[in-house]
Amino acid sequence: MYELYIANKNYSSWSLRPWLLLSELGIPFDERLVSFAPGTGSSWSGFRAFSPNGKVPCLHDGDTVVWDSLAIAEYLAERHPDVWPSDSQARTWARCAVAEMHSGFGALRTHCGMNCGLRIRLPDSLPQALRADIARIDELWSEGLARFGGRFMAGNAFGAVDAFFAPVAFRIQTYGLTFGAAAGAYAQRLRELPGMRRWYADALLETWRDPDHEEEAMQSGILLEDLRTTVS
Amino acid sequence: MYELYIANKNYSSWSLRPWLLLSELGIPFDERLVSFAPGTGSSWSGFRAFSPNGKVPCLHDGDTVVWDSLAIAEYLAERHPDVWPSDSQARTWARCAVAEMHSGFGALRTHCGMNCGLRIRLPDSLPQALRADIARIDELWSEGLARFGGRFMAGNAFGAVDAFFAPVAFRIQTYGLTFGAAAGAYAQRLRELPGMRRWYADALLETWRDPDHEEEAMQSGILLEDLRTTVS
Ligand SMILES: N[C@@H](CCC(=O)N[C@@H](CS)C(=O)NCC(=O)O)C(=O)O
Ligand SMILES: N[C@@H](CCC(=O)N[C@@H](CS)C(=O)NCC(=O)O)C(=O)O
Repeated sequence: MYELYIANKNYSSWSLRPWLLLSELGIPFDERLVSFAPGTGSSWSGFRAFSPNGKVPCLHDGDTVVWDSLAIAEYLAERHPDVWPSDSQARTWARCAVAEMHSGFGALRTHCGMNCGLRIRLPDSLPQALRADIARIDELWSEGLARFGGRFMAGNAFGAVDAFFAPVAFRIQTYGLTFGAAAGAYAQRLRELPGMRRWYADALLETWRDPDHEEEAMQSGILLEDLRTTVS
Repeated sequence: MYELYIANKNYSSWSLRPWLLLSELGIPFDERLVSFAPGTGSSWSGFRAFSPNGKVPCLHDGDTVVWDSLAIAEYLAERHPDVWPSDSQARTWARCAVAEMHSGFGALRTHCGMNCGLRIRLPDSLPQALRADIARIDELWSEGLARFGGRFMAGNAFGAVDAFFAPVAFRIQTYGLTFGAAAGAYAQRLRELPGMRRWYADALLETWRDPDHEEEAMQSGILLEDLRTTVS
């Protein structure tokens, strides 16, 4: 049985990607949730106990350790169908979009960190780099949906490319980001996936708070609502 | 024939990766070198004319556009042997190492930007994040070399994982970075590859200077030598 090491669901956008991919493709796995260390923000070398670079997600398959979200996707693609589209054009496009997300969109990550349970109003005037990231994601999603004519980004079936952009769907909800009609509807479809609903419900039940992630969210705009279970 | 869009060889570390992979695997391609825009540093939306996200490298194969270094590696792997090791354990490890490089090592990129023709002395005391990046690369290289027992990182043959770390070999030379014996010898082997020698020779002949990249290098330490062709 695969074991997938992840961090707190309310915060850990990288963990969500392979977790959702496994869940939606119906591949059985054991979830190993290890909390970020209290007070050290997102960095915790304790993850080194199970992950060579001290980061999550990390997949264990017997003795084999796969320590990055994109490497996990390719590892699964060698063993299970539907990680990537079978059509070669769609597959190439999906891999480009995934790689672009894997190494890019730094402004979105900085200004709109994943924090599933919060609702925040951003300032009216967004930083230029953030606007550029949002515009590029809107463009990419719209292109995929139009070109491969599907419910999902590279066709009618959910796959790795959707999993890689799934955290954006939560960020849209948290920060009220504005997207075009096609992209907005797609984000909604992502949030309605069974796996996304389960992740979200779990995130809301978490009572552990990371000071750094919380402060980051507070600095990005005005808190409208905190839907999480109250810490008593 | 493949067309590979790249930027200036002295500076563009991302361009080097697929260029070297194609070159060392003996896959024919046409090089399309497009210079960074003068005065705009590394960002030039003019790249959008041939690359959807405005970045290089970008591979064109007829109508198919592959716009990220890692997606290019997977695209080539579907069409040519030896991009990844044929041994499954080595391949998984190589993909993890490539993905870690693709999204990580931000301190190394910031403090030691690729600038092939310069020799710079860094301050005695390096920032903690830079030391951590160097230590992690040393660890990763040493592990790969020991575990897969090869001249290259995941075995005896050069592949994508070596291409992805090749810019580090130039950075070691430019900034005099200290690595362990195994890793240092490996970096030397990388620099001696025919493709690396050609890239380096081309970089030294470039007379175009990007003000931002130059300033970045000057701020990282003390300039010892500039081996590039003099701009007249
Ligand atoms: N490139 C990595 C990114 C992983 C990553 O940054 N994970 C975060 C949590 S979402 C983490 O483990 N942070 C702990 C740390 O940086 O020490 C991947 O795609 O898996
Ligand atoms: N994740 C991309 C990174 C590409 C990248 O950042 N390329 C730089 C040149 S080395 C670039 O095109 N910069 C132009 C810009 O950012 O506008 C890849 O792996 O291909």
